[in-house]
This record gives sequence, structure tokens and C-alpha cells, in this order.
Amino acid sequence: MADEYALRVIGYIHSELRDPAAAPKQGTEGAPDAWLDLAPYAVPAARGLRVGQRLIVISWLHRADRDLLEVHPRDDARNPLTGVFATRSADRPNPLGLHRVTIREIDGGRLRIGPIEAVDGTPIVDLKIDLDQP
Amino acid sequence: MADEYALRVIGYIHSELRDPAAAPKQGTEGAPDAWLDLAPYAVPAARGLRVGQRLIVISWLHRADRDLLEVHPRDDARNPLTGVFATRSADRPNPLGLHRVTIREIDGGRLRIGPIEAVDGTPIVDLKIDLDQP
Repeated sequence: MADEYALRVIGYIHSELRDPAAAPKQGTEGAPDAWLDLAPYAVPAARGLRVGQRLIVISWLHRADRDLLEVHPRDDARNPLTGVFATRSADRPNPLGLHRVTIREIDGGRLRIGPIEAVDGTPIVDLKIDLDQP
Repeated sequence: MADEYALRVIGYIHSELRDPAAAPKQGTEGAPDAWLDLAPYAVPAARGLRVGQRLIVISWLHRADRDLLEVHPRDDARNPLTGVFATRSADRPNPLGLHRVTIREIDGGRLRIGPIEAVDGTPIVDLKIDLDQP
């Protein structure tokens, strides 16, 4: 039995992407921009963010299979069965997604960010300044 | 009240670093290597990892203050009060730490990784292949 912590959702993605099967595997593969609607309690934590900044967004890929420990990378059966920690599969014990985005627009507790391959309704759990700003 | 998900610990860090106040702020600022002891249930998920690979390690900074939403960056009172999402502070609603490491050694369910600024006993919640391999 795994030790556990409670992860608090800080907001949700609103995106034109609705079908995970059709979504790009990574944001650099043609993903759109999306809105991040912050939960009211989390709005003060966004003070100081500015349009044009690069962020690392951590999502919770809520449709993933948390009990799948080995996969064929990129859903290609020709690739050998590999532990999920040696891949970027969404299926893993904690389906945390990492997304490097740029802030396009800020409207109160809503941030327009992109490119981001997360589907509509994806919970977001953290935002950090990207230390590798170009 | 925030929506919540249960985060499962996949292993723990064993490090010579014991005092968070003395730990470097980022792994690139002189952090040591450490052992990651995987939980037995998570060992199959590490199949395929190899010495020399670069990983992104996601930690749970269990000593952080989850209710602190604004901070003075780098603990310097001369820096203006800033929302934690615009910083790399460990204090934030979900104290997830990102660490880029290299695998130094693999010994069954133990991985020697570094450099990593996480203190001894830090829970680890995910490992991913670093897409920016040099």
C-alpha cells in the first residue's frame, strides 16, 4: 500500500481539445492555446505573473490508468514493453503532466496559456516560473 | 474548498542533505547525488531505465507550507511580495519539486541519482524521461 498525500486542484483547463486520443502527445507537436481558470482560493498565488512569461504547468491527467506500470512507448506495439518511468506515458501511478507554456493573456483569475496539449476539463495542480527562459 | 486527488508515494530519497535551510535552492547550485529507494509496488515501472539517462524527478516537498500563497522570492525581504506561482518557492498549495538528474547507478529497486537538492526522507511521486536529453 502506497503512502499518500492530498493533491489540491488549483484550477481547470478550458480548451477546444476534447478527445484525448486526438490530442498531440506533447505541446510542441501542434497543441492549441487554452484558458486556465484558477480556483478562487488560488488567485492570490498568481500575483506577479505577466504576459509573455514562460511557465511550467503541472496537470493531473485525470483520464489516465494509474495501475498501468508498463507500456509500449507512443502506443506502438512494435516498441518493447517499458516501465512507465522510462517513458512520457500519461498512464503512471501519479498522472502528472508537465507543460511548458507562455502566458498569452491575463484576465483576473483566468490565464490564457499555450501551447498546451491537455484536454478540456483537465485539472491543474501547480504553476512555476520556467528557469530556462529563452 | 479545493477538489482533491490522492497522490501515491513511489519512493523516498536517502541523502546526506538533512537540513532544508542548508540545502541549495536548485540542483544546479551544488547539490549532491542521493539514493531513490522505490516502493515495492513501483519497481516494475522502472523497467528499462539505464545508467546515464536523464530523468525529471517529481518530489513532494513535505516540509513546505501549503497555505502560504505569497512569498518574498529567495527568502530575501528586499524582493517584493510575489504569488508563489510566479516563483520557485517550495511553499505552495501542492509542494511539487522538479529535479533534472542523471541516473548514476541502478541496484534492483534503488536508483542512484543526482544532482538533487531534496533532503533526506523526501517523498518522490513521479519519474519521467527528460525530453531535453543533451
